[in-house]
Amino acid sequence: MRETKLNYIYKCSSCLKEFEAKEIEAYFSYLCPNCGEAEKNKPLIGVLTVEYDYIDLKKKLSKEDFFKLTPGKFWLYPDLWSIDFQNFSDDQLKKLSLPSDQLLKYTIDGKDLWLLDDTRNPTLSYKDRASSLVALKALQLGINEIAAASTGNAGSSIAGICARLGMITHIFVPSTIPDSKRIQIQSFGANLFMVDGSYDDAFDLCLEVSTAKNWYNRNTAYNPLTVEGKKSAAFDIFIATKGNVPDKIFVPVGDGVIISGIYKGFTEILKLGWIEKLPQLIAVQSTGSDALVRFLECGIFNFKCAHTAADSISAGAPRNLYMAVNSVKNTNGKAIAVTDDEIFAAQKIIAKKFGILSEPSSAASLAGYIKMDDLGEIGKREKVLLLITGNGLKDISALDKWNNKPGAKTTSQWKESFGLK
Amino acid sequence: MRETKLNYIYKCSSCLKEFEAKEIEAYFSYLCPNCGEAEKNKPLIGVLTVEYDYIDLKKKLSKEDFFKLTPGKFWLYPDLWSIDFQNFSDDQLKKLSLPSDQLLKYTIDGKDLWLLDDTRNPTLSYKDRASSLVALKALQLGINEIAAASTGNAGSSIAGICARLGMITHIFVPSTIPDSKRIQIQSFGANLFMVDGSYDDAFDLCLEVSTAKNWYNRNTAYNPLTVEGKKSAAFDIFIATKGNVPDKIFVPVGDGVIISGIYKGFTEILKLGWIEKLPQLIAVQSTGSDALVRFLECGIFNFKCAHTAADSISAGAPRNLYMAVNSVKNTNGKAIAVTDDEIFAAQKIIAKKFGILSEPSSAASLAGYIKMDDLGEIGKREKVLLLITGNGLKDISALDKWNNKPGAKTTSQWKESFGLK
Repeated sequence: MRETKLNYIYKCSSCLKEFEAKEIEAYFSYLCPNCGEAEKNKPLIGVLTVEYDYIDLKKKLSKEDFFKLTPGKFWLYPDLWSIDFQNFSDDQLKKLSLPSDQLLKYTIDGKDLWLLDDTRNPTLSYKDRASSLVALKALQLGINEIAAASTGNAGSSIAGICARLGMITHIFVPSTIPDSKRIQIQSFGANLFMVDGSYDDAFDLCLEVSTAKNWYNRNTAYNPLTVEGKKSAAFDIFIATKGNVPDKIFVPVGDGVIISGIYKGFTEILKLGWIEKLPQLIAVQSTGSDALVRFLECGIFNFKCAHTAADSISAGAPRNLYMAVNSVKNTNGKAIAVTDDEIFAAQKIIAKKFGILSEPSSAASLAGYIKMDDLGEIGKREKVLLLITGNGLKDISALDKWNNKPGAKTTSQWKESFGLK
Repeated sequence: MRETKLNYIYKCSSCLKEFEAKEIEAYFSYLCPNCGEAEKNKPLIGVLTVEYDYIDLKKKLSKEDFFKLTPGKFWLYPDLWSIDFQNFSDDQLKKLSLPSDQLLKYTIDGKDLWLLDDTRNPTLSYKDRASSLVALKALQLGINEIAAASTGNAGSSIAGICARLGMITHIFVPSTIPDSKRIQIQSFGANLFMVDGSYDDAFDLCLEVSTAKNWYNRNTAYNPLTVEGKKSAAFDIFIATKGNVPDKIFVPVGDGVIISGIYKGFTEILKLGWIEKLPQLIAVQSTGSDALVRFLECGIFNFKCAHTAADSISAGAPRNLYMAVNSVKNTNGKAIAVTDDEIFAAQKIIAKKFGILSEPSSAASLAGYIKMDDLGEIGKREKVLLLITGNGLKDISALDKWNNKPGAKTTSQWKESFGLK
């Protein structure tokens, strides 16, 4: 193992116990050594978070310096990551860079609306934020092979990021994976293992094989750097808005890792004293995959098979449920569910009005916004931001649903219909 | 018509006659009023270029100031465009911005290779460079509706860019258009006209209808701002390399507009005195669509039906053939043809080794590089750049060709094959 910066510790999000970085990393632990549990069809217990010395960082860092940074390049603020970026060249890091203009302003029904457009990341999804950090960590730990269980985007993301860095990937997927997602993963050169079974089966198999083979594991939530990597969006928003962060952020929620990452990022910015309150995080789920909504209503997790066309937020047992719950509660947020029809209607608006092709899961954020706005729950002066988490071309079959093939005419027929001779 | 900057003129690339900007723009002329001809199955005659007062600009602009710019934002050097950017807000322009880190360095067979990655532009193709300029020009001329003929990407590009700016688009396509390209165009809300006939038929119909309807026309090469818009890549390369521009640039060539744009951009940089010589432009075509290669061999244009899996560079009669010829000749460049098999082999390398999903047409640039390198025609110390012009997810059927679906196994079968109990 190469030398790593040790200005951070790990903390269990369940039992709150703290661990030295070496204690976790030297043995390739992922969940809390004290209480960690990865049981089938249940949220994970003992997900670790990375914690820095915020009191020290508060003295050392200034928000004015942050405002000078280009968004989309997380290595520009190295103190807030558990990585020694000096181990990597500019040429390597550039390959992980996101577009600098992801924060776009639109108007809908006379109201301003901000989008964080993650549809043009290296593999065209938000998951690249996690994959990049995980890949750099693996290299720093001296490991060149990464394994992950995936229903599609996470696998494609880690495969694409690793291809950029010359690393090897092993992806475990349920054999029911849609062809388009499978093709993306394979194209990037990953070793693909099709498992006759559920995502849960693929998840468990991936844990077992990667332990035996000494591959670094990127399973979502399980590897603490997945939540950690996903915090970069909070910093990108903070930098791009020059600290005028949104009042409400709509986040599509499946496993609950993105919302937990966003929450972690804003919490750190709050700890640094650069914002006065956290944005309210609005978790948007599909009515066919609403474990978080149900948990917040009755305080109990019940496994229910997930069924939704928004496959990237389809999760019967959200791996990071408990951290997602805290992200909503501690920001005075809310969780709402939208139907697949509402998701498709929102996907259409995002394409036609905003000029962005989004995946159904991404469109859930606008669907959630429309629903809450209809209920009168969005203040007229509130600054609202939607996360757009994945490109529509990753799943063109969804776009096909609302674009019927029009009839063809000959040139002379067209001329006639235009009133030309 | 709103007031426009008039620090530029139009010049005919065929008869070399010059025209005042007003003379062209007030009457919505596109081709040269003196010699322009748009005949079926022939390259266009009289394509206009936009020309600035380079002697004046040389005094006014400094390359050091250019090096401070972020690549991907052409409006940051307004003197080199025929647009008054003051008419547009930052919020509008941001929606046209390209990723700032498009220039990526890789190594292949021990040699350094630079890529200009245009796969993450707003609609995931190089064509956005032209569409953005055309859309702004239309708005400046007081027109809100744009028409274009397209085989796919150009239509999707102008539709997406116009959706971002709240404009209306009318796209004329041959009815044989692949479903995935059709769906992209329709998703962005364009009015789609399916023409029973060839791309040429769609091109002619689009000209006639757009004239009658007073829609601004984006037909490639025909509208002088298509070549003009595509020059921005030369400036992006110049800025990102801090003036150490490549010795050779490999450009996939269909209609010849991209290579002409790149040539125009570097020619301007040369006129400004910021580089000493032009990069050699290597035009790469498919053996099934090689009009430029054939023209350079025998000096005559012959129409030949194009057949290639690289549909974005499929052109029996390249609209901008003559400007493409000059781009190759005047840079001491070359045109070569590669087979579809060589293109797919290159597409595979770009995905697996570079972590980028590219369209077949994009992969032609690497196929051309490999071919020339095998012939020993690339110097060991030459700095080589490949244009990667479109995202592979725009045409997933091409990726599907070399990714067979692997067989599935149960968890216990996989464990056994990994030697686990």
